[in-house]
Amino acid sequence: MINIALLGFGVVGSGTAEVLTENKSIIEKRLGCEYNIKYILDLRDFPDSPFADCIVHDINTILEDKEVSIVAEMMGGSHPAYDFTKACLMAGKSVVTSNKEVVSTFGVELCALARKNGVRYLFEASVGGGIPIIRPLINDLSSNKVNRISGILNGTTNYILTSMRDKGVSFADALATAQKLGYAEANPSADVDGIDAARKTVILAALASGKLVDPKTIYTEGITKITLDEVALAATLGYTIKLIGHTEVTEDGLVALVSPRMVPSTNPLCRIDDVFNGVLVNANMVGEVMFYGPGAGKLPTASAVVADIIDIIANRDSEPKPIVWEQATAADVCDFSAYSCKRMLIFSGNSLPECAPEGTFGKTDKLCAVVTDNTLSEADVDALTSELGDKLVSIYRVL
Amino acid sequence: MINIALLGFGVVGSGTAEVLTENKSIIEKRLGCEYNIKYILDLRDFPDSPFADCIVHDINTILEDKEVSIVAEMMGGSHPAYDFTKACLMAGKSVVTSNKEVVSTFGVELCALARKNGVRYLFEASVGGGIPIIRPLINDLSSNKVNRISGILNGTTNYILTSMRDKGVSFADALATAQKLGYAEANPSADVDGIDAARKTVILAALASGKLVDPKTIYTEGITKITLDEVALAATLGYTIKLIGHTEVTEDGLVALVSPRMVPSTNPLCRIDDVFNGVLVNANMVGEVMFYGPGAGKLPTASAVVADIIDIIANRDSEPKPIVWEQATAADVCDFSAYSCKRMLIFSGNSLPECAPEGTFGKTDKLCAVVTDNTLSEADVDALTSELGDKLVSIYRVL
Repeated sequence: MINIALLGFGVVGSGTAEVLTENKSIIEKRLGCEYNIKYILDLRDFPDSPFADCIVHDINTILEDKEVSIVAEMMGGSHPAYDFTKACLMAGKSVVTSNKEVVSTFGVELCALARKNGVRYLFEASVGGGIPIIRPLINDLSSNKVNRISGILNGTTNYILTSMRDKGVSFADALATAQKLGYAEANPSADVDGIDAARKTVILAALASGKLVDPKTIYTEGITKITLDEVALAATLGYTIKLIGHTEVTEDGLVALVSPRMVPSTNPLCRIDDVFNGVLVNANMVGEVMFYGPGAGKLPTASAVVADIIDIIANRDSEPKPIVWEQATAADVCDFSAYSCKRMLIFSGNSLPECAPEGTFGKTDKLCAVVTDNTLSEADVDALTSELGDKLVSIYRVL
Repeated sequence: MINIALLGFGVVGSGTAEVLTENKSIIEKRLGCEYNIKYILDLRDFPDSPFADCIVHDINTILEDKEVSIVAEMMGGSHPAYDFTKACLMAGKSVVTSNKEVVSTFGVELCALARKNGVRYLFEASVGGGIPIIRPLINDLSSNKVNRISGILNGTTNYILTSMRDKGVSFADALATAQKLGYAEANPSADVDGIDAARKTVILAALASGKLVDPKTIYTEGITKITLDEVALAATLGYTIKLIGHTEVTEDGLVALVSPRMVPSTNPLCRIDDVFNGVLVNANMVGEVMFYGPGAGKLPTASAVVADIIDIIANRDSEPKPIVWEQATAADVCDFSAYSCKRMLIFSGNSLPECAPEGTFGKTDKLCAVVTDNTLSEADVDALTSELGDKLVSIYRVL
């Protein structure tokens, strides 16, 4: 009998209890082994829940119980989630988590601590919700060198951008609807400012490179400035605007950034709409593969948490295969001002200023744009911005 | 040092040698262990190849060499691939393969033989080429009960259907181009008649249900009868025609079939074009996830073969986790005449006959159609066909 403790009985925590209960017989049959939810740590009591008897309020109850070998942390936020995770690993318990904030900030230390204690720290649910992406990157693409990963990693912003494109509603109105539907928080900053996507991007970057970058240090731009006029202009040129977490492993180091991008209609990410997420991986042997599915939500995210629990149980008699990450130093990271990609420069009116770079031209009644080749660096763009003057409305990176 | 033997030095075999060589240093670093391609079995000699010295012509050289612990079978066809696989497993060697014909026909016996001999039989490359799909179904969706899998599983037919839709070329012309580009064989039957997709469908069905159906017994319809008029009509109703391998795990048993289907524009499979493949999985906790990528090709398929080799090396000190399949009996399989889904009934002219079922109507200059609800069974459709008479052009299943 494997005893499991859950930390947090919110959306993902209660979903995890539900998956473990609902699919118990098929999971136990697959594992050839029984399991039990022994504790659920939460500040609150849940007298009406079928798990009422499992609720505990003191982490020490779990830490001190030698019968508990697996802990699922689904508390959110850095503290006390990080502290509890550390304590569990040091107590010889494997930990699985959906907490991207903890993984992206403390992943190096926690993976090392798991290794040192002969246990595992898994985080499939921290990126892409229910979409299998972490384990496929580690296992299935193990024969490849990963070159690039581009992802729609945040369901809230993708819902807003899809509404803007398909229903013609403004950012503010789409956000209000997202809040009404429970897709966005009252304080939507972590989503709409790209902070959540940045955390997921550095996790993907670490899986591609072995180097974890502090998510606070990467270029992060949200979706708050995108206008309906720009969305319409993008469509005339065959693009759709998506919030893209992007990472590249280059000879000059790691690139990682989050920004709205113009995604061409030929790119499979272009059709990932509403609250769905998609992660497009370019690797040196397989070429491009994409993983698509629900990027958030109670049961999908719990499905990934439980997949990690099953992985730990299934491999309990084997030597743990460690995830080895190092904290990225300045030398590991590309000089961002040298990062080059295609750009779309958007201008008011319907003709380009004389000094605009060459490229594909498009326009609507109100705006016009040129899509450049992929040689413009961030530094070039900064220089251009001052040169191009008042007519320049915005500059988008192109995927 | 792990010694590997390759069976077959054709497209996938030479690709596998290339992946193992090109990415040797990063793979060995990940594994913490070195490997070596010791033998390559082929009827031919390859005097100019860097692997010339590895070429052998007698399977016994490999079977009798105790140093060889992993064999990658990439010969294609049932014989001698099946016989060699069996001999390798019985000699205590793990086998990985890209051979869907062998897996779909002999999978039950070969998985059992691997179990019995304490080795592994893996076949990630047998479905979806380079797309990780087999291992994710086993590992990542292990917390789920799989309800349905629908896949675009054959790149050749998808290329032809995409050409018909986007370039307006007929089936015959698109096939000729596919043959010129090397996407289709001189004898294209295995592709265009759905035989290849049927093999992959029963493998996916077995992963979902544990029961392997003989691929020759499932309903299999190819793309040879699809006309440009039907493609145009589908578009006016918001559908695109794709060859879909489809399986459902129902209370009445397993459903598995291959046929062209009308895929609505809201379905993520709708935008999987050209030679790409996509597999859409519906499972009880995660909902819908999709895996997308190159479904064939030298290096992508080899990438999956090598992922299996890496899996075996990485887990060489652990108890092998067996794949347990049973051969499906008649009792395991749904009565196909009772299989119900939405249908599109296509008629000549631009009005429906009086006895046509209710549904959404659409038309072009030449044809008209009605899309029904999902209650029409195969038996109902057979009955309707005789009733509706001469004006009925075709009936498509709708995804």
